[in-house]
Amino acid sequence: MDGVESGHPHPYVPRDLNLPGYVPVFLSQSTILSVYGLASLLVVSLIWVLSGGKSRLSKLDRLLMCWWVFTGLTHIVVEGYFVFSPEFYKDKTASYLAEVWKEYSKGDSRYAARDAGVVSVEGITAVLGGPASLLAMYAIAKGKSYSYILQFAISLGQLYGDAVYFITSLLEGDNFAANSFYYYAYYVGANASWVVIPLVIAVRCWKKICEAFQAQGQKKTKSR
Amino acid sequence: MDGVESGHPHPYVPRDLNLPGYVPVFLSQSTILSVYGLASLLVVSLIWVLSGGKSRLSKLDRLLMCWWVFTGLTHIVVEGYFVFSPEFYKDKTASYLAEVWKEYSKGDSRYAARDAGVVSVEGITAVLGGPASLLAMYAIAKGKSYSYILQFAISLGQLYGDAVYFITSLLEGDNFAANSFYYYAYYVGANASWVVIPLVIAVRCWKKICEAFQAQGQKKTKSR
Repeated sequence: MDGVESGHPHPYVPRDLNLPGYVPVFLSQSTILSVYGLASLLVVSLIWVLSGGKSRLSKLDRLLMCWWVFTGLTHIVVEGYFVFSPEFYKDKTASYLAEVWKEYSKGDSRYAARDAGVVSVEGITAVLGGPASLLAMYAIAKGKSYSYILQFAISLGQLYGDAVYFITSLLEGDNFAANSFYYYAYYVGANASWVVIPLVIAVRCWKKICEAFQAQGQKKTKSR
Repeated sequence: MDGVESGHPHPYVPRDLNLPGYVPVFLSQSTILSVYGLASLLVVSLIWVLSGGKSRLSKLDRLLMCWWVFTGLTHIVVEGYFVFSPEFYKDKTASYLAEVWKEYSKGDSRYAARDAGVVSVEGITAVLGGPASLLAMYAIAKGKSYSYILQFAISLGQLYGDAVYFITSLLEGDNFAANSFYYYAYYVGANASWVVIPLVIAVRCWKKICEAFQAQGQKKTKSR
């Protein structure tokens, strides 16, 4: 009735969450997802093609480079925007990144509510994890000796962030999704890749690092 | 007036924190600190003496073993008690571990208030970090190939936990200490070791791991 100035009712749960000045999402869910999907596909394709020129790199290395650029840009651009935009839910300009978080908050209203645990984890991820992920891409491309330990460190950080993210929600009642569709699609589904892929990468790096020390141990034994 | 059943006023900040059934701390600060200090000294001395029999171990290795046992037992016993004792502030038996957390809450009342971020970080630390720390002691003693990556992983986890712990407090107003003595002695002072030591260990492990890959790279180059 009073229009935007006094705030629209928000679609988030818990219903008593107070978000004065909330402006509804303008873009459709499919538009939001398509832009993210296409932008990611573009970036990943670019890295795949460019890295193909380096014959030294295995397909797995190139795939990992694609992951690190994808996750690094997501951390810096998408999550970085959230960390430094406490009032994204008031955005009236249909700015894409504000729309992303207005939409995602349907799966986890702690984003709109500015929960300290969520902001902390997202802050660490955006400010440290993001640039480190881009460095990981570079380290793989150049065959740096810190490549595995850097990939391990970022992956472990992502897993620790997931743990804090999910445990705090459970402890606070696990009631932050607008309905079970958003719960499974956004809260569970969108985060699943950042549980499974870091876990696989961390295990691989752990093994590679152990192998390097085993090789070093054998060398030492031989040289005695 | 009504005695213990209706609850004593608590000494924590913020003053409006509601802790029905709070029972004041029985032991003095010096008793609480002495027990922790002496128990730690006993354990550390034991590890130092026992590890001295192994001539292969350097003094630094033995010092690291002492650290991992000290931090591992602190995580499991002291922090583990907190995680699984949501009502420690009601304890009437002067149970030592309840006293520790009643006292520490003067430096950070989020412990008594059962803040979800604090409980999450402490839960991860106690359940994963604690046993992993004891494994790290074993790995150093036995010269396992996973020794450095395990020490790195735990240290990085401790640093991530610190970051969440301090950032959530800042975001929530940094007003959880009864006064500035408790702020600096408990909140800053007691946690400082778990910032500085993990940082030093993580940097050392990172370097050792890079060296192992450099050595492997040289070996490969030679064998061509």
